[in-house]
Amino acid sequence: MAKRPLILVTNDDGITAPGLRTLISVMHKLGDVVVVAPDSPQSAMGHAITINSTLHLEKVTIDGKQPEYSCSGTPADCVKLAVNEILDRRPDICVSGINHGSNSSINVIYSGTMSAALEAGIEGIPAIGFSLLDYNWNANFEHCKSFVEIITREVLSHGLADGVVLNVNIPNLEKKAIKGVKVCRQARANWKEEFDKRTNPMGREYYWLTGKFVNMDNGEDTDEWALANGYVSVVPVQFDLTAHHTIRSINTWKLND
Amino acid sequence: MAKRPLILVTNDDGITAPGLRTLISVMHKLGDVVVVAPDSPQSAMGHAITINSTLHLEKVTIDGKQPEYSCSGTPADCVKLAVNEILDRRPDICVSGINHGSNSSINVIYSGTMSAALEAGIEGIPAIGFSLLDYNWNANFEHCKSFVEIITREVLSHGLADGVVLNVNIPNLEKKAIKGVKVCRQARANWKEEFDKRTNPMGREYYWLTGKFVNMDNGEDTDEWALANGYVSVVPVQFDLTAHHTIRSINTWKLND
Repeated sequence: MAKRPLILVTNDDGITAPGLRTLISVMHKLGDVVVVAPDSPQSAMGHAITINSTLHLEKVTIDGKQPEYSCSGTPADCVKLAVNEILDRRPDICVSGINHGSNSSINVIYSGTMSAALEAGIEGIPAIGFSLLDYNWNANFEHCKSFVEIITREVLSHGLADGVVLNVNIPNLEKKAIKGVKVCRQARANWKEEFDKRTNPMGREYYWLTGKFVNMDNGEDTDEWALANGYVSVVPVQFDLTAHHTIRSINTWKLND
Repeated sequence: MAKRPLILVTNDDGITAPGLRTLISVMHKLGDVVVVAPDSPQSAMGHAITINSTLHLEKVTIDGKQPEYSCSGTPADCVKLAVNEILDRRPDICVSGINHGSNSSINVIYSGTMSAALEAGIEGIPAIGFSLLDYNWNANFEHCKSFVEIITREVLSHGLADGVVLNVNIPNLEKKAIKGVKVCRQARANWKEEFDKRTNPMGREYYWLTGKFVNMDNGEDTDEWALANGYVSVVPVQFDLTAHHTIRSINTWKLND
């Protein structure tokens, strides 16, 4: 690539999040950076888009080293606005994160971070979502930097298969305790919900959603195994959701008279 | 099945939507019905869940033939609350819809209707999302009934493969013009966004997201082909998003020093 790559940076924790700031700092080593991120936290938004209300976009200055836009919408909205309204050429890559908290296994489905990466992938742009296994706003992202840089460089150099983006999760360990990077499949896991039922001062009942994460997958080729064993996990993720392997069997049903 | 099946019914257009009422009327022929649906429209919510605010659940009477609960959350929240707080046994099936508008091809990613079905699937419950290719609130759902019944009966009788739910789309045609039901793969398609930029009375700019749907897929085994040619499309959808076919190639990259 003769020109420096154009890098679109976004996230779902909001434009002021320390994880985003870390991601921006790494991307300056690799190319020209434009930031388009939600003006407020959008965690667990899944792949929401804003179609029934208006979107606002504001040019803001946070650290002054790159153009930055604060958007009233979801992470997927940010990518759509960036590509269609803000950037004058297609970005060479879109990176999302670094998320404060895991997006491994089934969390990919609920993740705003990965929704932004998927939206970029749908637009044909190579994309990566990065997450650190630490939900704290003041989490230490220092040890993430070298992994983020290596993986982004490899994607810039090799590209990604059509219809595929990467879901990268980084353990909350010291740098020297991390054993390396593993390419994985998504573990079969889910959340065992526990609703915390309360009564408000007016006597009306309400719920908080809480839950326990349950990994039912004993495979050693999964993201959960990698993370539990001190590796950074890289899962290639696709947005063709077709369960191709089941079509033949469903075709034996009596669906037509 | 000796007992009548327990059927959980939900949607994303809200508990008063005519599409939901049609779905309920068909389900009464097949089993015992419980409705848990959003109290307001939740279209394009993707797989959002409510973790940063409270959830309210209200027992309501709309047509009086079945227990119904109106929920302040997203379609995925409705399924979680139904399974964990409302129902005293696991439902035998969860049906979502009938959505007012298409959820074919890439729309599956943005769809609240399919998010509810996927959430049920994650909980291990066979699930189907139904959509009619008509966005009107007063769309005619009459011709959907027999297809909804046949497909639901087949799922009750055969079950679904582990980790798979069905995405069913129904053309907006007269019953006799529909040629039958086809099991399909998700077409490769996307939205070409067009943001409508306006200025509000206070002089501030804002955007409406609009766009054109572009089908780039010439395959005759896709949902788009089936719908364009007068068939009901049935796509088996999975929530293991791993692009398994790309793992071998990514394993050749230099991800470790």
